[in-house]
Amino acid sequence: MKNAIVLLSGGLDSATCLAIAQSQGFDCYALSFDYGQKHAAELNAAKRVAAAFKITHHFIMPLDLGSMGGSALTDDAMTVPDHQNDDKIPITYVPARNTVFLSIALAWAEVIAADAIFIGVSAIDYSHYPDCRPEYIAAFQHVANLATKASVEEKVIKIEAPLIHLSKAATIQQGHALGVDYALTISCYRANAAGLACGSCSSCILRQKGFTEAGIADPTPYL
Amino acid sequence: MKNAIVLLSGGLDSATCLAIAQSQGFDCYALSFDYGQKHAAELNAAKRVAAAFKITHHFIMPLDLGSMGGSALTDDAMTVPDHQNDDKIPITYVPARNTVFLSIALAWAEVIAADAIFIGVSAIDYSHYPDCRPEYIAAFQHVANLATKASVEEKVIKIEAPLIHLSKAATIQQGHALGVDYALTISCYRANAAGLACGSCSSCILRQKGFTEAGIADPTPYL
Repeated sequence: MKNAIVLLSGGLDSATCLAIAQSQGFDCYALSFDYGQKHAAELNAAKRVAAAFKITHHFIMPLDLGSMGGSALTDDAMTVPDHQNDDKIPITYVPARNTVFLSIALAWAEVIAADAIFIGVSAIDYSHYPDCRPEYIAAFQHVANLATKASVEEKVIKIEAPLIHLSKAATIQQGHALGVDYALTISCYRANAAGLACGSCSSCILRQKGFTEAGIADPTPYL
Repeated sequence: MKNAIVLLSGGLDSATCLAIAQSQGFDCYALSFDYGQKHAAELNAAKRVAAAFKITHHFIMPLDLGSMGGSALTDDAMTVPDHQNDDKIPITYVPARNTVFLSIALAWAEVIAADAIFIGVSAIDYSHYPDCRPEYIAAFQHVANLATKASVEEKVIKIEAPLIHLSKAATIQQGHALGVDYALTISCYRANAAGLACGSCSSCILRQKGFTEAGIADPTPYL
């Protein structure tokens, strides 16, 4: 059986990604990070999603990015803003996050001899984060092709980003068809302790728009 | 003043790298990892080196690569072997280590608006690790050029590998000229609690050969 590492944040995209990887026949190892997010709702959602997909290996790695600061998602001195309708990179951007996450996934992929790493980034309906673009994923693939002992032995670890050209609505439709229960997931940047979403941050706005455009009822519990 | 992140392992190469970065006028932020190495001597050496260079920011980041296993440096079930005179990648290889370290350095570099990241890899007198080759460094530079908010704003964070074409002897000569006290550093893969080197692992053999060829006395305390 083919193995894959799936980066699992607890959000809508990574849950869809996990469903896609399983539907392609991969035995999935889920990888989440406790990286100093201000709220625990995200990791609770990741655990719920992993359980729903009967994942036997779910590694939640502590990662002290919070000490470095620089993002409203980890820095107590910065406040997560309401959605801004512009093309600027927002202060919720976490410096080099996907590079850090993919690197650690690559390490684990080598150890378990995985064939692929799945990451749920999208260059459509996204927040202008630079590390969600196709050219970024291609660049990281090139690193993976050179960085590892596996690569010297001519084994390719494929970086799979199956949502990269999908709108949020198309992602939801695909996940819905694969049986993803989106009520288990959370996208909100400032969910409360009970896991209720704010409904007004950038991530909530994109999620709501996605369900509306997909014509599927939004199961998210809002404040 | 220009800022740089310097990856500091406590070994000979990274200490030389730090001396080179300082000599080029960089204000240096040292980054070390507590990644599940079997011995603490390495991080103690990193602290001594940082103190000798009067580094005010030295971040030792806990990083649980040990739980993943896959390397004799972190996995208690694997033993560090004596030096093998062949061109195989040894079991002391830590999966994707330099990619993980450079990624976290990239995150910190963004936060402090650093101009460069220094890494003490060499493609000469090395242990056939794939992530020490010039083409690997070039690939990671390409990721850094695409991954970050800084890159979108057209600020380049340069990956500097000043030792990449240097033999161990040439590295030692350069560091010696810059005043590096190599007695503070440790290269051994299996140093004991007192920081004494074994003298027979691959890393010790390369270090001894380097001092001999450089014509400089080896200050390493051996068992």
